[in-house]
Amino acid sequence: MDTPATRSQTAVSPQELHLMDRYWSAANYLSVGQIYLLDNPLLRQALAPVHIKPRLLGHWGTTPGLNFVYVHLNRIIRARDANVIYICGPGHGGPGMVANTWLEGTYSEIYPAVPQNEDGMRQLFRQFSFPGGIPSHAAAETPGSINEGGELGYSLVHAYGAVFDNPDLIAACVIGDGEAETGPLAASWHGNKFINPARDGAVLPILHLNGYKIANPTLLARCSDDDLNRLFSGYGYQPIFVAGDEPMPMHEKMAAALDKAFDIIQEIQKTARQGSAPQGVPHWPLILLRSPKGWTGPKEVDGKKTEGFWRAHQVPVAGCRDDDGHRQILAQWLQSYQPETLFDSDGRLRPELQQLAPEGNRRMGANPHANGGLLRRELIVPPIADYEVAIPRRGETQAQSTAVFGDYLRDVFTLNAERRHFRLFGPDETASNRLSSVFDATDRVWMEKIESFDESLSQEGRVMEVLSEHLCQGWLEGYLLTGRHGLFTCYEAFIHIVDSMFNQHAKWLKVARGLPWRKPVSSLNYLLSSHVWRQDHNGYSHQDPGFLDLVANKKADIVRIYLPPDANTLLWVGDHCLNTFDRINVIVAGKQPAPQWLTREEAAAHCKAGLGIWPWAGNENGSDGPDVVMACAGDVPTMETLAAVDLLRQALPSLIIRVVNVVDLLGLQSKQQHPHGHTDAFFDDIFTPDRPVIFAYHGYPYLIHRLTYKRQNHANFHVRGFMEEGTTTTPFDMTVLNEVDRFHLAIEAIERVPGLHQTPAAAAALALFRRKLDEHYHYVRAHGDDLPEVRDWRWQARS
Amino acid sequence: MDTPATRSQTAVSPQELHLMDRYWSAANYLSVGQIYLLDNPLLRQALAPVHIKPRLLGHWGTTPGLNFVYVHLNRIIRARDANVIYICGPGHGGPGMVANTWLEGTYSEIYPAVPQNEDGMRQLFRQFSFPGGIPSHAAAETPGSINEGGELGYSLVHAYGAVFDNPDLIAACVIGDGEAETGPLAASWHGNKFINPARDGAVLPILHLNGYKIANPTLLARCSDDDLNRLFSGYGYQPIFVAGDEPMPMHEKMAAALDKAFDIIQEIQKTARQGSAPQGVPHWPLILLRSPKGWTGPKEVDGKKTEGFWRAHQVPVAGCRDDDGHRQILAQWLQSYQPETLFDSDGRLRPELQQLAPEGNRRMGANPHANGGLLRRELIVPPIADYEVAIPRRGETQAQSTAVFGDYLRDVFTLNAERRHFRLFGPDETASNRLSSVFDATDRVWMEKIESFDESLSQEGRVMEVLSEHLCQGWLEGYLLTGRHGLFTCYEAFIHIVDSMFNQHAKWLKVARGLPWRKPVSSLNYLLSSHVWRQDHNGYSHQDPGFLDLVANKKADIVRIYLPPDANTLLWVGDHCLNTFDRINVIVAGKQPAPQWLTREEAAAHCKAGLGIWPWAGNENGSDGPDVVMACAGDVPTMETLAAVDLLRQALPSLIIRVVNVVDLLGLQSKQQHPHGHTDAFFDDIFTPDRPVIFAYHGYPYLIHRLTYKRQNHANFHVRGFMEEGTTTTPFDMTVLNEVDRFHLAIEAIERVPGLHQTPAAAAALALFRRKLDEHYHYVRAHGDDLPEVRDWRWQARS
Repeated sequence: MDTPATRSQTAVSPQELHLMDRYWSAANYLSVGQIYLLDNPLLRQALAPVHIKPRLLGHWGTTPGLNFVYVHLNRIIRARDANVIYICGPGHGGPGMVANTWLEGTYSEIYPAVPQNEDGMRQLFRQFSFPGGIPSHAAAETPGSINEGGELGYSLVHAYGAVFDNPDLIAACVIGDGEAETGPLAASWHGNKFINPARDGAVLPILHLNGYKIANPTLLARCSDDDLNRLFSGYGYQPIFVAGDEPMPMHEKMAAALDKAFDIIQEIQKTARQGSAPQGVPHWPLILLRSPKGWTGPKEVDGKKTEGFWRAHQVPVAGCRDDDGHRQILAQWLQSYQPETLFDSDGRLRPELQQLAPEGNRRMGANPHANGGLLRRELIVPPIADYEVAIPRRGETQAQSTAVFGDYLRDVFTLNAERRHFRLFGPDETASNRLSSVFDATDRVWMEKIESFDESLSQEGRVMEVLSEHLCQGWLEGYLLTGRHGLFTCYEAFIHIVDSMFNQHAKWLKVARGLPWRKPVSSLNYLLSSHVWRQDHNGYSHQDPGFLDLVANKKADIVRIYLPPDANTLLWVGDHCLNTFDRINVIVAGKQPAPQWLTREEAAAHCKAGLGIWPWAGNENGSDGPDVVMACAGDVPTMETLAAVDLLRQALPSLIIRVVNVVDLLGLQSKQQHPHGHTDAFFDDIFTPDRPVIFAYHGYPYLIHRLTYKRQNHANFHVRGFMEEGTTTTPFDMTVLNEVDRFHLAIEAIERVPGLHQTPAAAAALALFRRKLDEHYHYVRAHGDDLPEVRDWRWQARS
Repeated sequence: MDTPATRSQTAVSPQELHLMDRYWSAANYLSVGQIYLLDNPLLRQALAPVHIKPRLLGHWGTTPGLNFVYVHLNRIIRARDANVIYICGPGHGGPGMVANTWLEGTYSEIYPAVPQNEDGMRQLFRQFSFPGGIPSHAAAETPGSINEGGELGYSLVHAYGAVFDNPDLIAACVIGDGEAETGPLAASWHGNKFINPARDGAVLPILHLNGYKIANPTLLARCSDDDLNRLFSGYGYQPIFVAGDEPMPMHEKMAAALDKAFDIIQEIQKTARQGSAPQGVPHWPLILLRSPKGWTGPKEVDGKKTEGFWRAHQVPVAGCRDDDGHRQILAQWLQSYQPETLFDSDGRLRPELQQLAPEGNRRMGANPHANGGLLRRELIVPPIADYEVAIPRRGETQAQSTAVFGDYLRDVFTLNAERRHFRLFGPDETASNRLSSVFDATDRVWMEKIESFDESLSQEGRVMEVLSEHLCQGWLEGYLLTGRHGLFTCYEAFIHIVDSMFNQHAKWLKVARGLPWRKPVSSLNYLLSSHVWRQDHNGYSHQDPGFLDLVANKKADIVRIYLPPDANTLLWVGDHCLNTFDRINVIVAGKQPAPQWLTREEAAAHCKAGLGIWPWAGNENGSDGPDVVMACAGDVPTMETLAAVDLLRQALPSLIIRVVNVVDLLGLQSKQQHPHGHTDAFFDDIFTPDRPVIFAYHGYPYLIHRLTYKRQNHANFHVRGFMEEGTTTTPFDMTVLNEVDRFHLAIEAIERVPGLHQTPAAAAALALFRRKLDEHYHYVRAHGDDLPEVRDWRWQARS
């Protein structure tokens, strides 16, 4: 067992450490200034109420620790010409990141309105957490950031995502001890088991144990060093402890710890890159930094312990505008950094301190990996024609959509093997979702022991499987934000596990798109399979199509929802999504053998339009418009709709039916609501202005109403979808339980066409369909399988 | 450092171990039978295709391990008269739980249609994963279960929730090594830091390392024993290893391990209960069980490794109906358990094996803690009149809703101190959400070191704070399902973190409500504060009201959404929710000082109705109905609506306005859609059949459309809500950015009343309101605060 290294020596001179301490003071001064000051940035005048912001918003507690790490990373970057990004995990770490990027010059280069002088400093202070200004997190607005730290828990998983296939990059990841209590963070430690030192970069986690959250101690900070050492060495790391509260000894320890950590990283990488594959998971370094919360801030305020306690979390001394005593504490606190020794009379950092920052793109605020669009290369994709499913007889051919798409993905891996910028992510479901073809081109990455009987595992694999949707999502986010490409395939129901991560990524993209200096990154693509209608064998817990509702809440220009009804449409959609950027694309497609409808050319035209009439399925030829529109979205609802049309056309040949299929769901909205939206005129052309529309939808039916309620014909939309009726049963029984099966659809079509159900033919048809439902009910319970006529149904094309 | 204990001796006799092995065989036989057999349960005939299910659904891999644990727990329960529930974490563990509860008799007591004889065995086999039958998980249908294991990751957190305040209970929790990769499970290990051995029961985690997931090895199973020992002793446990594949030595080891684990638990509890408070977190035992996946199943199928590999995960030999060779493998496999030695000729378990099961409520399938409604006692609540906010002048009084409710909660703690059946759960936000009054009655529970300067921490606290929404949710679920009461308070945006857990709990409740033997449990209550409109200081990442959309997708009889507009309504709603059962209640309420509208009596009447006209706010007296309806739901939208009404009544005294407030959101639907729904006639009475309705809503506006699209007046509903426009700014600016502020509302009211905007007075009003928006824009950016007239606005009651 490794023993903690707390007393290592450093080669950094006392002079340099002293300069670093002053640099740290400068960053701390600027952080306090951001939280408090509206004006008087250099304290040229005595601090007066008018200099204090009217609403004091911000978080001091975590900041001095973040600044401490920043100045030390600056030192080692310069000493080793290292390529480092800074992932700032703790909540509200914004002031520190902003202060440091301003000190190193990147902030002013990106935001010229905030120059490196007194005016700039005033603006820097004023804009923070101020209307029209910047947020209190290391958000998209913050140079050098790929992790906001607004919602906590994702710093470490982002860090791992960033270094996959980035052999020269080191992601230094500061993890707050609050954040470390979250589930996603607790699982993220296992990221070390997916890093191949020969081809990937390194993550240096720095667990910042400052002891407190908003109003509580943290669990890990109150663990003994011995317990922490066991815990993290059990996770496979080499813990290095840095603990204390006296600045100069702490500088010495931190410099030594970083030297040691970088030495270990270098050694692991050197060995692996000289051709000796690691035996198992290398023991990467991990720094455990114990320093006081609100370090260097007021020790006490109003007689209450502040530094080193949770009272330092936010604004430690809150009454500075109205309370002279509080303002006095603030003034002393600011003066304690001796700003006149840090900044020249113009407000510029003094030259001897300036030289402590790295230069050019080595500055962490300027590192292009944190603005991944700068580095992004196009994904090479094969022509989808190569995978086309031939349709000799429409609706008779059976294929597994995701399996066909799997062949395409296999070749994406092959074509991009040299570029090393594409990975597939999924919770142990790549094979289950029928994408196994990819294993002809690559393996699952696996750094632990590989047994002789294992299959498709290797240290070089590019398929990332771990039973954590959080890790899949977070790794992919980190991978995309650093300029690469990827796809997350997941069971539909369990994508809800990352609802909140999806939300945060959508928010990040919305903000990033408004920042010209942030270059576009590849879209985050989901392929949701094993969907609600074909989880009949796994039962109710596995049946939930609600992710689409969440997605539809987001800004229209960020999100797309695709429901390809067959393999050729999935090919078109999947290929399209992989070539987009700055979006979140959600594709839902089945993995089971299912009828195929469209040729490649038809699929392309249909998907480009987003929705349209399938003339071959209806019987409108020459008629004056349909009696009823049978609409569908999703592969199973499409099949049931066409089966219903079959039944109706057989029973009621004179009923004029139009079939409409929707692939691009948000296109149901108007152009004002969504970029893919359609005009009212087009919508009425497709859905008619006044005929009944029986709409079989993949998910919760309300979403269709929500998307179409402004349309003229909305009152005639009768939507069927998932009604939370699910269990372990047969595939067809699932549709019957939710009344989205062919018989219910056909019955509703007859009932909704005015006057129709009173005709003898229609009455007979209704009786037949109801009898069939009854027959189904008894058959399925007796035989455990669907009626043969349902199971073996094939589309009877007769236009 | 503790060393692994793998060679302990057990006092269990070889004879008893041999009987246990046979009992295990019986459970395994029944498990295989469930997966495969439609008939011929005792193999009286040679196995024929007709005996095999047409669709083979089920998961063998995890089952023998689960059965192994079950028989050993039976043994120790009998030996020590222990009170144990079995939490079955691994996915698809249903066959094992069902088999064991049938063997012990509970299954047939609950389901008399499945008796303990040959017919019952046939039915037991047939119903599994069969239409009209039971699911493949340890679902609500499964006796003794409180954790489905459908979506993975929540077993351990449920186990901890179950034992809080249950001093005699031991929750034996089997955790799959797949499940153990999830974030929630990784965080759940910290549950040990919240168990007070003097008053809580114990969790015995049994990490089942069978090595594989669906198609992959597991991360933890490929870790060395040494790493696992460090990891889990770092988490604070005493690991006990049980590893092997030879049944008899494994029985011996497992019996010894359980003896040791129960000894440790007994010792910890004895010490604590004799009055010596633990110093820090006791080192509770943890069993690490390494056994082959698919243990005792086919070693190979078609020449491919099956036992001890992921191919054993689901149905190891799949072609049994059509392939004679496969069927032969199955027959041999079934025969290998020697069923004739296990069951008598009637299909009953042989008497010498029957006596291995515990009796009565000690049987794990019958333990009342796993059917918590049996043990549930009423929560004692104080009269809400005691907390009433007096309203001397309507809209002038300011109060913090959650702070008032906090006083009520404080007294709930006091009143139920003896019953020990109420806890408050939250991610470090109890104080932030202004519920600090509870700390006058209780503390946060804290088992790690407590410093002299800590506040409101103690080993006896009943407020559960940890920075993990997953743990809060899971603990509360476990606490409720075992018959107690609780409330989860959370920042609104971050409740999305547990979307999927919410879904699964709603599904559990839906199923449980259909099972007469499951007695009602207390509702799961959420109090979401720090909501979207008052996260102005924390910015965009903290702004998301979308949880309500997710909730509205669930079955109507399970969910309720409440948006109390002030403190007296929150009191009524909160009190109401705490007294309901088998539901999920979501309350969204602000924590900031805000105007108060209703007296206690008015609040009660208004909340009971769910929605209604506020006559004092409008000016309809004697009129022929309003020109416009100003509707609102949520505290901030209500305030902005009333401010808009103020503006309108001042500018356009002749405009007849009705104000409608909605508290019980789902009541907007019809009675057919929701039990709290209203008739069309009532709806039209409130919202009019034909006047414009300007609806200011707390969340995404689409939800209101979705709830009301069937209403006659729907086309006149103009809903404003959160449009994903958020940032760090002032409270009022947040409403302006999303156009749900008083000025936008007043402008839309004027524009929507036919002909109105052409009148000179209306034109002047429009110009004024637009000027005010402009003024706001400049003021807020100049001063960092809202216009004084907005900030200091008070309702001008003038009816």
